[in-house]
Amino acid sequence: DFEMALSEVKPAFGQHTDDFEKCIPFGIQAFSQEITYTMDSCKSIIEQVRSSTHTPLMSVLVHGPKGCGKTALSAHLAQGSDYPFVRRVCSDKFVGYSEQAKIAAIANVFEDAYKSDLSCIVLDDIERLIDYVRVGPRFSTPVLGALFALLKRPPPKENSRLLVIGTATDASFLEEVELLSAFNVTLPLPELSQPAHYKAVLDPLPGFTAPAVQEISAGLAGQRVGIKTLLLVAEMAVQRENPVQIGVFKECLQQCGLGL
Amino acid sequence: DFEMALSEVKPAFGQHTDDFEKCIPFGIQAFSQEITYTMDSCKSIIEQVRSSTHTPLMSVLVHGPKGCGKTALSAHLAQGSDYPFVRRVCSDKFVGYSEQAKIAAIANVFEDAYKSDLSCIVLDDIERLIDYVRVGPRFSTPVLGALFALLKRPPPKENSRLLVIGTATDASFLEEVELLSAFNVTLPLPELSQPAHYKAVLDPLPGFTAPAVQEISAGLAGQRVGIKTLLLVAEMAVQRENPVQIGVFKECLQQCGLGL
Amino acid sequence: DFEMALSEVKPAFGQHTDDFEKCIPFGIQAFSQEITYTMDSCKSIIEQVRSSTHTPLMSVLVHGPKGCGKTALSAHLAQGSDYPFVRRVCSDKFVGYSEQAKIAAIANVFEDAYKSDLSCIVLDDIERLIDYVRVGPRFSTPVLGALFALLKRPPPKENSRLLVIGTATDASFLEEVELLSAFNVTLPLPELSQPAHYKAVLDPLPGFTAPAVQEISAGLAGQRVGIKTLLLVAEMAVQRENPVQIGVFKECLQQCGLGL
Amino acid sequence: DFEMALSEVKPAFGQHTDDFEKCIPFGIQAFSQEITYTMDSCKSIIEQVRSSTHTPLMSVLVHGPKGCGKTALSAHLAQGSDYPFVRRVCSDKFVGYSEQAKIAAIANVFEDAYKSDLSCIVLDDIERLIDYVRVGPRFSTPVLGALFALLKRPPPKENSRLLVIGTATDASFLEEVELLSAFNVTLPLPELSQPAHYKAVLDPLPGFTAPAVQEISAGLAGQRVGIKTLLLVAEMAVQRENPVQIGVFKECLQQCGLGL
Amino acid sequence: DFEMALSEVKPAFGQHTDDFEKCIPFGIQAFSQEITYTMDSCKSIIEQVRSSTHTPLMSVLVHGPKGCGKTALSAHLAQGSDYPFVRRVCSDKFVGYSEQAKIAAIANVFEDAYKSDLSCIVLDDIERLIDYVRVGPRFSTPVLGALFALLKRPPPKENSRLLVIGTATDASFLEEVELLSAFNVTLPLPELSQPAHYKAVLDPLPGFTAPAVQEISAGLAGQRVGIKTLLLVAEMAVQRENPVQIGVFKECLQQCGLGL
Amino acid sequence: DFEMALSEVKPAFGQHTDDFEKCIPFGIQAFSQEITYTMDSCKSIIEQVRSSTHTPLMSVLVHGPKGCGKTALSAHLAQGSDYPFVRRVCSDKFVGYSEQAKIAAIANVFEDAYKSDLSCIVLDDIERLIDYVRVGPRFSTPVLGALFALLKRPPPKENSRLLVIGTATDASFLEEVELLSAFNVTLPLPELSQPAHYKAVLDPLPGFTAPAVQEISAGLAGQRVGIKTLLLVAEMAVQRENPVQIGVFKECLQQCGLGL
Ligand SMILES: Nc1ncnc2c1ncn2[C@@H]1O[C@H](COP(=O)(O)OP(=O)(O)OP(=O)(O)O)[C@@H](O)[C@H]1O
Ligand SMILES: Nc1ncnc2c1ncn2[C@@H]1O[C@H](COP(=O)(O)OP(=O)(O)OP(=O)(O)O)[C@@H](O)[C@H]1O
Ligand SMILES: Nc1ncnc2c1ncn2[C@@H]1O[C@H](COP(=O)(O)OP(=O)(O)OP(=O)(O)O)[C@@H](O)[C@H]1O
Ligand SMILES: Nc1ncnc2c1ncn2[C@@H]1O[C@H](COP(=O)(O)OP(=O)(O)OP(=O)(O)O)[C@@H](O)[C@H]1O
Ligand SMILES: Nc1ncnc2c1ncn2[C@@H]1O[C@H](COP(=O)(O)OP(=O)(O)OP(=O)(O)O)[C@@H](O)[C@H]1O
Ligand SMILES: Nc1ncnc2c1ncn2[C@@H]1O[C@H](COP(=O)(O)OP(=O)(O)OP(=O)(O)O)[C@@H](O)[C@H]1O
Ligand SMILES: [Mg+2]
Ligand SMILES: [Mg+2]
Ligand SMILES: [Mg+2]
Ligand SMILES: [Mg+2]
Ligand SMILES: [Mg+2]
Ligand SMILES: [Mg+2]
Repeated sequence: DFEMALSEVKPAFGQHTDDFEKCIPFGIQAFSQEITYTMDSCKSIIEQVRSSTHTPLMSVLVHGPKGCGKTALSAHLAQGSDYPFVRRVCSDKFVGYSEQAKIAAIANVFEDAYKSDLSCIVLDDIERLIDYVRVGPRFSTPVLGALFALLKRPPPKENSRLLVIGTATDASFLEEVELLSAFNVTLPLPELSQPAHYKAVLDPLPGFTAPAVQEISAGLAGQRVGIKTLLLVAEMAVQRENPVQIGVFKECLQQCGLGL
Repeated sequence: DFEMALSEVKPAFGQHTDDFEKCIPFGIQAFSQEITYTMDSCKSIIEQVRSSTHTPLMSVLVHGPKGCGKTALSAHLAQGSDYPFVRRVCSDKFVGYSEQAKIAAIANVFEDAYKSDLSCIVLDDIERLIDYVRVGPRFSTPVLGALFALLKRPPPKENSRLLVIGTATDASFLEEVELLSAFNVTLPLPELSQPAHYKAVLDPLPGFTAPAVQEISAGLAGQRVGIKTLLLVAEMAVQRENPVQIGVFKECLQQCGLGL
Repeated sequence: DFEMALSEVKPAFGQHTDDFEKCIPFGIQAFSQEITYTMDSCKSIIEQVRSSTHTPLMSVLVHGPKGCGKTALSAHLAQGSDYPFVRRVCSDKFVGYSEQAKIAAIANVFEDAYKSDLSCIVLDDIERLIDYVRVGPRFSTPVLGALFALLKRPPPKENSRLLVIGTATDASFLEEVELLSAFNVTLPLPELSQPAHYKAVLDPLPGFTAPAVQEISAGLAGQRVGIKTLLLVAEMAVQRENPVQIGVFKECLQQCGLGL
Repeated sequence: DFEMALSEVKPAFGQHTDDFEKCIPFGIQAFSQEITYTMDSCKSIIEQVRSSTHTPLMSVLVHGPKGCGKTALSAHLAQGSDYPFVRRVCSDKFVGYSEQAKIAAIANVFEDAYKSDLSCIVLDDIERLIDYVRVGPRFSTPVLGALFALLKRPPPKENSRLLVIGTATDASFLEEVELLSAFNVTLPLPELSQPAHYKAVLDPLPGFTAPAVQEISAGLAGQRVGIKTLLLVAEMAVQRENPVQIGVFKECLQQCGLGL
Repeated sequence: DFEMALSEVKPAFGQHTDDFEKCIPFGIQAFSQEITYTMDSCKSIIEQVRSSTHTPLMSVLVHGPKGCGKTALSAHLAQGSDYPFVRRVCSDKFVGYSEQAKIAAIANVFEDAYKSDLSCIVLDDIERLIDYVRVGPRFSTPVLGALFALLKRPPPKENSRLLVIGTATDASFLEEVELLSAFNVTLPLPELSQPAHYKAVLDPLPGFTAPAVQEISAGLAGQRVGIKTLLLVAEMAVQRENPVQIGVFKECLQQCGLGL
Repeated sequence: DFEMALSEVKPAFGQHTDDFEKCIPFGIQAFSQEITYTMDSCKSIIEQVRSSTHTPLMSVLVHGPKGCGKTALSAHLAQGSDYPFVRRVCSDKFVGYSEQAKIAAIANVFEDAYKSDLSCIVLDDIERLIDYVRVGPRFSTPVLGALFALLKRPPPKENSRLLVIGTATDASFLEEVELLSAFNVTLPLPELSQPAHYKAVLDPLPGFTAPAVQEISAGLAGQRVGIKTLLLVAEMAVQRENPVQIGVFKECLQQCGLGL
């Protein structure tokens, strides 16, 4: 129950595989060149932290619109890094935490990482971690301050290295509060926008015939849709009608807030 | 008394039938096609959560103006889902709770749901849950943050599924704070606006003669009235005069804030 | 003393006659048709709650400018309802209470009411209950939230009914915070504005001769004066000069903030 | 010391003569007709509370610019009322009090007054009591709320009567927060503005020759000076030069912030 | 250490000579007529408090731009008053104090003063005492409220007298919050602005030749420099080059923020 | 872990060499005349504090854009001063501290310094120490107030001296809150902007051939790049391709937020 959640602050060591798996329910598809570019850049940095002795602390921010795949991609990269210590920090573990408890929990993950020679921490959905609300704007200054400090503090142990991968939706807000520039590297994650992208994703799905995929992809051309939304709409449609017709697909798309 | 209310945080298991019944004092009437569309869409999603293995967590927001039937409809759908675990979360259980106590109570309902294979949680009147007041605007950032996290966290148990049905009045505010897009699906609930709608509702009521219904329905044409308000006005009128004449109906309508 | 006031939160049962008497020092005079209309409408609702099985919870808001008689009228109606449980909730019992203590005290009154079959609660001077100050504006969001919840929660006990009569001065503020529409029914309470109104009130007072009443009523024509202020000015004048002349009446009127 | 001040919350009974004396170091001079009018009006109300059975609670606000004599006049009137219970409430007894402690202390004075048959409470310098600062504006909403309630609550004891005399500088702010209209009666206290006023005050002072008074009074014509400031400037001047010449008087006037 | 600082709230009696000496490292030079006027006015008031029986409480505000000598001058005057009780209240004794602890500490100094027949309290750097920050603006309302009350409360003991000397930089802010007019007397402290002023200060300094002083004084004509800054620049310059040349003087001046 | 960090408030004595070394991973290169000027000015002040008896407390603010070398330079100067007591105060030691705990920790460092005859304290990244966020703006008034006080308080011990070196990015904000002028001396730290600067830094790096350096330096002309960023980009590039070509360098530059 709720009190138990609170007592689970103290994390265990090693990789938390299940946690990462849950973030990638539909796997990773390289549906565009930009996706490939961003993934390759991240992999270079993963290698750099492993091999260079001059950069014991590196931080990368992956940012893109809602549902573009930030959570899945960051989990995929962290998991694939093969670092001995890999962790996700994510707001849904902190429901009901006070600011101080949240900061302590986050700082604990970093303290654990410092004990390992090679660590990767994913700070997923930074806006949620700092309780950002556009109206105001409101956000937690103490948590933000903690992130600033943690992003600057190199591992105190000799030869210990740490890679931080952050994800965020609203890069311009992060720039306003100067958190963007607290990351060494910034990489964009795009939505799908061209028929080829849509085709690449929908073609392999069960329940989608070639003509339907053709029709849908053409219809979506020019629209920007996140991979997460697209896969959800496809699932909703296929549950309502199999094989899927464009009419049902459009209805589901609209109920998911697109085309409105 | 008040202290006892506080100790009632811990919910029991199974369906709370009484609670749901109280939300639907006048039953459900399908007085327009839009109502039918929204109800059918919800039922599709109820089935999808039951049958699809890819969407262990789905969330639907039903929104519409004051008195359009949100509380009754969401209770009706949840009750009709036949899921083993069904709960309403509603601000009137939280009178005098601190933000932290309210978050704990809400989180507890979710924790209980995660233990069931198939659950439905109704978050009724989200603006009240987050203590939203248009002036300012004011609202509880911690409760809002908790809702964000709970709407993203898939049930941790293997094969466990959860459907969240939220209701809200001010969709544009929810969009401003980005809570709208935290729901997978968004469905509108309209008011009555055409003579046919009014007739469908008033005709079966005791104390309303056919000519009176005819006259009232024609007079209301073009006005937008919520089903809840219409049924209250009808009740007030019939208590004052039986059978109801249009004059008394108009007086009651005005005292209920319409036609002013 | 002050600490004792705090321990008096727990209310006794039945009618609190004295409390209501103190609110109506000068009795109730039906000096205009609007007064009669508002009183009659309230009485209809009192009957409706008593007899209809469909509306276990009704709420009426009586609003009008400062001194128009809200406190006296609401006390008079509640007292005259002959319900077994009748209570006033009023800010002057809450001096020095914290927001939480005030909410607990108010909620307690409602909990007590739920235990009775037929109850009437007067929420007098709602702006003061929520500590509203126009500058800002400031007001207590928690108390406001509690009122919202209490105005929506039907008595949990089978066949139990509750009528809430609220009074307020600034209807437009209540509308801004959406509290106005949380009441089922809204009724205005006007000031005196015509010579006939003034005459009806002043004529029976000791110390006021017919010619003086005539002169004063004519002079006040077009001005809007609350019944409370008018009766105070009359009392001040008669204490200074008996029988009252128009000069002294005017001086007192001005010192009470009118004609300035 | 400071802690002792805190333990002195509990007031004794009867008149606190010394306290009132300290407020009137230079006595009271009726230097203008307006002063006389305001004093006479207050005295009428003092008599009304004593004799009328219809107004168990009356409140008067005396307001005027800084240094116009509010503290001295209100002390003088209260002391001269010959009521059995007379008290001053004044912010300099509350240094370091929390809002709650201040409210408790003020409420205690009222509770003590209710026990007496006839009481007068002076609320001196209301802006300071509510910690008002023009910048913002800032003020204590809880203390303001307490004043609202205390100004409305008639003495609970049968035949008990209470007169509240408040003083304030910034009537327009009090109007903005609606505290002005919470007082039954409002009376202005003017500064000195005419040569005759200045002469009436300076003539009797030692160290002021007739020609000097003549010269100074003429020079000040048109300027508005509070009685408190004028008497201080006179004292400063006479300490520097006796008999006073206009040059020294002007220098002191300027150092006291006038003529700048 | 820090906790010890907290336990040093309780002040001892008599003059704290060391404390005052530290405030006047370079002594006091009367480099202009305005300085002389302000010092003489203060001395008159020191005498008035000592001798007049009508003004048991006097307060003087000395204000001027940063570094114009406020701290040194107020310390010099207080020390030279020869009063039996003389104290400085200054923010650097309150590092880490809560608002309440700071108010208690300040009030304690006043309570101690009231026990003496003749006291002088220096409130140095009032903006810092109330934690004023121009951005917002922000400031401590409770500390400000305490100052208001302490500046109005005459010593309670018979024949006890108190002089308060305050210093501040931003007179216009003090006026906005009405603290300026809470002081009886207000005196300005100017910067150096004319060659004669600069010469008067630099001539006696070691390391400054007559031609250099001549050149520097001419160059600074029209600029406004505080005595504190000027003496620091002179010291920096003489440490870098002895005898000082105008080039080094200019460099130091610029590094101290002048001429930029 | 986190609790241990909290218990490490109490600092040890003497120089903390490791701490300073970590701040200068790439050493110090004097790549421009401005760098040399700023370093030399600091060294003069270090000597002045050591030798002059008139300035027991000196404070210097080094400010410049993100990544211009503030942390490294201030550490280098403090370490090179050869003072017996040298300390860094830096926000990353305060993760999760309350404002009061942070103030206590900072004040402790100063208290320790006062015990030494000659001390140097580096306040690195002042914006972070006061939790400054541009949006709002927000910042910690209590910590800011503590810095004000600590920057004014001369060491209480006879003959004890203290040099404070602060670093900051946003000098205009520091000026707005008047912290800039609380420092005696203000010195700018520039970025690289000319081909000669770039060459001076890149030439000695392994993996950079003369033609590549030539090409890169020419391409960067006119751009302003911080030394920290330049060295990071160089490291990233050389890890991806050795010897580095301009294409890879540009890619890394862009990922580090330049040229966007
Ligand atoms: N190339 C890809 N990158 C990321 N996710 C992918 C990719 N291909 C397929 N997916 C799938 O798309 C979904 C992406 O959802 P994810 O939760 O990562 O989005 P998000 O950007 O984090 O959303 P939100 O903005 O709501 O946090 C996952 O189900 C994932 O398995
Ligand atoms: N199709 C329908 N949908 C919803 N409610 C209906 C319908 N037909 C009849 N009703 C009746 O209308 C009333 C709807 O009131 P309900 O409390 O659900 O409105 P609401 O939108 O939640 O109001 P509020 O905005 O005040 O929360 C109930 O009494 C319900 O029995
Ligand atoms: N028709 C009437 N309605 C209400 N009060 C009346 C009426 N006739 C006479 N009175 C008298 O007028 C006075 C009304 O004062 P009351 O305190 O009710 O005003 P109010 O509107 O509550 O004032 P406030 O705005 O200050 O709260 C009472 O003394 C009451 O006895
Ligand atoms: N007619 C008068 N009314 C009031 N005070 C008078 C009068 N004649 C002489 N005085 C003297 O003038 C002084 C008035 O000062 P007082 O403190 O009452 O002013 P105030 O308006 O309260 O000032 P502040 O605005 O600072 O609170 C007292 O010393 C009082 O003895
Ligand atoms: N006439 C004078 N008045 C004041 N200080 C003088 C005078 N002549 C010389 N001094 C010296 O000038 C310095 C004045 O510094 P001081 O700290 O008083 O300035 P300040 O106005 O308080 O500065 P800040 O605005 O920073 O608080 C002291 O060292 C003092 O010895
Ligand atoms: N002249 C120089 N001055 C400062 N740093 C230099 C210099 N030459 C080389 N360096 C190297 O450049 C880097 C400067 O980084 P540093 O952290 O000091 O920048 P910063 O301005 O503090 O950044 P931030 O604004 O992010 O706090 C260090 O690695 C340092 O070794
Ligand atoms: Mg995500
Ligand atoms: Mg509802
Ligand atoms: Mg009332
Ligand atoms: Mg006064
Ligand atoms: Mg000073
Ligand atoms: Mg730095």
